[in-house]
Amino acid sequence: MRKRSHWAWGYEDRFPSDEARRDLAARVAMLLQVDAPKLKALPALDSARVSESRFEGRNINFLDCDRETRIRHTYGRGYPDVLRGYQGDFLAAPDAVAFPESDDEVLEILQWAGTEGVKVVPYGGGTSVVGGVERDSSRGPVVSLSLRKMNRVLDVDVLSRSALIEGGALGPEIEQSLAPRNLTLRHFPQSFEFSTLGGWIATRAGGHFATVYTHIEDLVQSLRMVTPSGIFETRRLPASGAGPSPERFVAGSEGTLGVITRAWMRVFERPSWRGSASVYFATLREGAEAVRAIAQSQLHPHNCRLLDPYEALINNVPSEGGAVLLLGFESSGASRRAALEEALALALANGGRAPRGIREKVNGERGDDASAETWRQAFLDGPYLQSALATLGVIADTFETACTWSELDELLTTVRERVEATMRDVAGKGILTCRFTHVYSDGPAPYFTFIMPGRAGHELSQWLAVKQAASEALLACGATITHHHAVGRVHLPWFEREASPLFLRALQAAKDELDPHAVLNPGVLLPKR
Amino acid sequence: MRKRSHWAWGYEDRFPSDEARRDLAARVAMLLQVDAPKLKALPALDSARVSESRFEGRNINFLDCDRETRIRHTYGRGYPDVLRGYQGDFLAAPDAVAFPESDDEVLEILQWAGTEGVKVVPYGGGTSVVGGVERDSSRGPVVSLSLRKMNRVLDVDVLSRSALIEGGALGPEIEQSLAPRNLTLRHFPQSFEFSTLGGWIATRAGGHFATVYTHIEDLVQSLRMVTPSGIFETRRLPASGAGPSPERFVAGSEGTLGVITRAWMRVFERPSWRGSASVYFATLREGAEAVRAIAQSQLHPHNCRLLDPYEALINNVPSEGGAVLLLGFESSGASRRAALEEALALALANGGRAPRGIREKVNGERGDDASAETWRQAFLDGPYLQSALATLGVIADTFETACTWSELDELLTTVRERVEATMRDVAGKGILTCRFTHVYSDGPAPYFTFIMPGRAGHELSQWLAVKQAASEALLACGATITHHHAVGRVHLPWFEREASPLFLRALQAAKDELDPHAVLNPGVLLPKR
Repeated sequence: MRKRSHWAWGYEDRFPSDEARRDLAARVAMLLQVDAPKLKALPALDSARVSESRFEGRNINFLDCDRETRIRHTYGRGYPDVLRGYQGDFLAAPDAVAFPESDDEVLEILQWAGTEGVKVVPYGGGTSVVGGVERDSSRGPVVSLSLRKMNRVLDVDVLSRSALIEGGALGPEIEQSLAPRNLTLRHFPQSFEFSTLGGWIATRAGGHFATVYTHIEDLVQSLRMVTPSGIFETRRLPASGAGPSPERFVAGSEGTLGVITRAWMRVFERPSWRGSASVYFATLREGAEAVRAIAQSQLHPHNCRLLDPYEALINNVPSEGGAVLLLGFESSGASRRAALEEALALALANGGRAPRGIREKVNGERGDDASAETWRQAFLDGPYLQSALATLGVIADTFETACTWSELDELLTTVRERVEATMRDVAGKGILTCRFTHVYSDGPAPYFTFIMPGRAGHELSQWLAVKQAASEALLACGATITHHHAVGRVHLPWFEREASPLFLRALQAAKDELDPHAVLNPGVLLPKR
Repeated sequence: MRKRSHWAWGYEDRFPSDEARRDLAARVAMLLQVDAPKLKALPALDSARVSESRFEGRNINFLDCDRETRIRHTYGRGYPDVLRGYQGDFLAAPDAVAFPESDDEVLEILQWAGTEGVKVVPYGGGTSVVGGVERDSSRGPVVSLSLRKMNRVLDVDVLSRSALIEGGALGPEIEQSLAPRNLTLRHFPQSFEFSTLGGWIATRAGGHFATVYTHIEDLVQSLRMVTPSGIFETRRLPASGAGPSPERFVAGSEGTLGVITRAWMRVFERPSWRGSASVYFATLREGAEAVRAIAQSQLHPHNCRLLDPYEALINNVPSEGGAVLLLGFESSGASRRAALEEALALALANGGRAPRGIREKVNGERGDDASAETWRQAFLDGPYLQSALATLGVIADTFETACTWSELDELLTTVRERVEATMRDVAGKGILTCRFTHVYSDGPAPYFTFIMPGRAGHELSQWLAVKQAASEALLACGATITHHHAVGRVHLPWFEREASPLFLRALQAAKDELDPHAVLNPGVLLPKR
């Protein structure tokens, strides 16, 4: 089995080689106009510093207190996680990890924890970028709960285009099970290889579709969540008007209400036709007008990703020096060329140029044009680069939001002003790029990346300063603190200000009912009491 | 101002004339093979029996204790409501009605009620068919709360295709305000003329679109709800991944958590192109296969309504004696003819015939073909006919659900068997018809109508027997007790069995936080404690 890095993003064998890191250092030096950083050695598992387990020697049969296992369940993969891991700091390791194999075992662990004053952190795939899977060390012993042994596709209802999938199933495990039936869940977050269905639902993950089905909860037909008070299970229904939606109540609960152990998910026939086009614009703002027209057309493109000039440059997507819109439609039946042509016409009417025209592919062939291909590879490589940059002393991270079209201009201006000023303050310089990942009739979901030189020993405070500036800017402009990265611990201070205080009280009351001993994921999503 | 009937559906001046009722009696006699019922006089307001107001003489300035006002706020418009109204029974009238003009006034009323042990029933437009706006007389004095003075469109953000609308605005009031800007909310429930935005959101009303945006909550961008604990307000966002959705928590709360006083709603450009086709099938089940193919195609038709042969007959929609699918697309931009052709091809490939082909219209012209027109008129007349039938001693009502495609066959069989058997038992005979109102990739939303002869003095128990048989059948087949008519009091016994007990507990805990004195709509949605 391929090994995942104990500290960096992804598989060990895909981590950039020394040569690749040297290339990266040279590119960063040019981009940031700094001296090329020197390569340092990567951290070894053996030299990691780990706190002692408070369960050591107690021999509780469902707890794994192994040092390496605990190290591997210490952090998510946000910038502070990667940095601490790189520095060998695993003092926040959970006291133990549990790998239940059934709902009964999950329930047993949660109830045992309630009795013993133990806290339980649902681990998902461990790819949280918002501190969502980290222990709160102040509240007694902590068990990280992994569903990696509950990772099967249990049933497929081809007629109803739905599949019953366990919460611990990883993206590739799901797709491999569905492929022989020509079906797909078609949920491809950047973390696809390493994140789980349960984690996606718990965090309202964003996926493949740029419009309509943008978040995983749009695809949930029913679900089962194990709570300390018992099993919370909903009925398989395409829709209902009976009371508030229980699935929407669970989606986004971030492991604070229960552990999502299975869900019936809506699946799709695999696309047999794909059509795409790249449209060039002078600036992101010009492209935004075109994207708005398309988002309001009800044409519902599958891909409608707008990259600003720096995003295009960094990701090697041709854009003739400007912004580029990657537009795509797909179908499991007839060609959607007419819809693609109409969307493209809207883009051209709004100042775009598409010198390379429309590209179509059927069946096995890759359907997208070369720009989309290049984009996809860069998209999957992104988190590896972030880890590699951390080893070079360079701070790189992302944040994303959503706002109305009316607020967009102010948002883009304010974010740029504040983030660039803060980078100048704390790092002397820095780069901020922007893309739109998903779009709606009433507004886009802008996604920002910032890159700046770190000062050895001060990286975390530099990062925090930029994160705070960005978050304050989002809040000030009426946007949301997160479009699809969840709240966790990192976003909590701003979520508290974004959310209705009465909603937080209602949510806390619901949690107290389901988790009366406050076992689950303390410090995440809900303000401390 | 046109007057609404104090007991029947809709406007007094649109209630079927005596001549129309005689025609209806003759048609029913043929359909049910009974003697034509004799016309009886319609009930007069003066002879209505009303209980005394418990606020009489207390002179509370924000309460209206007028007899007629109380009568007019006694019931929704379900069959039992219309029957009791027809019989002059308004003993369940609320003790008073309040017409607040601002959020502050709503809050004042709710907090006063908490102090005084008074219950408050948010009235919406009074079109509930599930007992959602009726008082629970066992719990002290009851005030019906109407937002008819909070009925404005307050703001329109054309760029972001959204409008800020007060909770008491009726369908026509909304559309009239949006039309000059060439915008539309495009939410057309059968109750459109008489129901309110706040009521739609509180009950997760079903609207115009057959796919994608089937329920009103799909169009909610943000909302404000006045609760006894204060104002619950959400942020204007096209989307967010920050915690569970607060808008989805409020949608479907049926007046038990607060009063929805305003919402920013997603609106659309008014369609300038419409295309449609009627497709004939031998049976509903054959048509269902075609509808499934279309629903799973991601073509997203705006109209995809399948009528069984009896539905077509009763509503005068041509179907050559079989089932008929009314298929429609619309656009505010270019023609969607290609998508319509593709959907039509799927229908034909699944055994349909479309001898009249495709019909297209642009701009002001009516876009749909004659069948769709006929259907629309019959759709709006339906509730008037139900009221008129009640005066003829004929029981007519509807129920709707949603289920997976896999469960559909069993559902159609079981519902028909049990409902027809029960109608034979309690009425000697009866007719059951079925249509699909909305469709999803994973299943349809079947909508049933039953018509049977009433026995004077026994109508309510006859109706209840059929309602129970139908509801048991839905539950037994894994379907939902309601797709878009809400829970209210009528569906509560089955909702309790459909919902996860832990979800009901969580919801009750949230309610206790927002409504600590249990002021709001007791007996609705949440099981009694």
